[in-house]
Amino acid sequence: MKENLVLVRHGQSLWNLENRFTGWTDVDLTDIGKEEARLAGQQMLAEKFTFDYVFTSVLKRAIRTLWIILDEMDLMWLPVERAWQLNERHYGALQGLNKAETAAKYGNEQVHIWRRSYATPPPALSLDDPRHPRFDPRYAKVDPALLPATESLKMTLERVMPYWNEKIVPRLKAGEKILIVAHGNSLRALVKYLDQISDEDITELNIPTGIPLAYQLDDQLKVVSRRYLADEEAVKAAAEAVARQGLAKKE
Amino acid sequence: MKENLVLVRHGQSLWNLENRFTGWTDVDLTDIGKEEARLAGQQMLAEKFTFDYVFTSVLKRAIRTLWIILDEMDLMWLPVERAWQLNERHYGALQGLNKAETAAKYGNEQVHIWRRSYATPPPALSLDDPRHPRFDPRYAKVDPALLPATESLKMTLERVMPYWNEKIVPRLKAGEKILIVAHGNSLRALVKYLDQISDEDITELNIPTGIPLAYQLDDQLKVVSRRYLADEEAVKAAAEAVARQGLAKKE
Repeated sequence: MKENLVLVRHGQSLWNLENRFTGWTDVDLTDIGKEEARLAGQQMLAEKFTFDYVFTSVLKRAIRTLWIILDEMDLMWLPVERAWQLNERHYGALQGLNKAETAAKYGNEQVHIWRRSYATPPPALSLDDPRHPRFDPRYAKVDPALLPATESLKMTLERVMPYWNEKIVPRLKAGEKILIVAHGNSLRALVKYLDQISDEDITELNIPTGIPLAYQLDDQLKVVSRRYLADEEAVKAAAEAVARQGLAKKE
Repeated sequence: MKENLVLVRHGQSLWNLENRFTGWTDVDLTDIGKEEARLAGQQMLAEKFTFDYVFTSVLKRAIRTLWIILDEMDLMWLPVERAWQLNERHYGALQGLNKAETAAKYGNEQVHIWRRSYATPPPALSLDDPRHPRFDPRYAKVDPALLPATESLKMTLERVMPYWNEKIVPRLKAGEKILIVAHGNSLRALVKYLDQISDEDITELNIPTGIPLAYQLDDQLKVVSRRYLADEEAVKAAAEAVARQGLAKKE
């Protein structure tokens, strides 16, 4: 294994299935999502990948994906750091609504803007909305000023990148091999940075679920190589499936 | 929940079932062991326990027990620290042998001494024995001088206690609620210290598997209260089962 960074996006969750905006809602994987995780682990095992340190979010669909991968690879002993900064994009007041409800409430055009623009966030949760992260014990130790009530993709990047720089980069520079299991938009932040993708193009980029994306980075963290651990056909089919599924899979 | 420290001993593993000395061998839980973990999680959930930080060993029978507990309690997001210092007692050259093989090789009396004395370790693994921890990647970053090739209960305590003092005590003193999921002998070390049990008496103390042992500690970490999260009958039955099972369950 010459690669030193692998990104894995969690697979299908219950709300993907129901086509709801998920964001920071802590929904679990479906059986299909668990199977995607198993295949990701088996693929990395078959290619003799191993790691020194693992990062994930504080949301169970990512953590369970990671657990299944570690179990498949017989690496349950690896150190794991959970970070809210690697959470999915916060989807504000849209969280919990399905596609039809959202379109009926806000109109199709507006929904398209929230989904496709780089910098426009959906309506924020009010401070006393029970869905606000300040009521969730998992964020009790986070500075309340940092907790989002909604996020654009840009805002997601702005909390992913400081974490990347502070916690992940030093380990890569020390020669460690890193696995990150996270979400469509927190991984977009990293891919945008690593592959130098423009603000416009990044909203069109669909990272397939459950297919490990392996980077070889040099000392300066420049990309030497980049590949999906699957054949081209499978990656294309998975990316198309994500694009087709549209709404829910993106958030 | 007035308690601020809970200890959970993992349940039945495959080698418990085969009556083999396990030590640092990374065997998995049986279905019964997984069920013990589920019940432990359900019991803590029913009593509305929660935690700030979790410690476990680098052995999968403890980690899987923890995963099942976190899943049952909907606390998968809790920070978890894995530490080799919380591993089971290293059982030296006896690891992998079953009761009959051990008695045939070393004699019943000698085996009794290794199992029951506080300070006499079993024969050590040779440095080139493939079972030696220095060949296991999970210990690659541990100073080789610290890696045991065998341990008495006393030696186990001598690596558990510095970890307790350095990593766990500061969190308790800061007011955090701590869960530790570990092994018969690494937990004996903590119970010996907390309950001030003598060297002689500690080898006779059987911590039941899968029954959370909850302590309330004061600012100076003196024990204010101590209880098993199960009724007295269940605890007695579990401890007797462990004592009866004898050999394998102890190591």
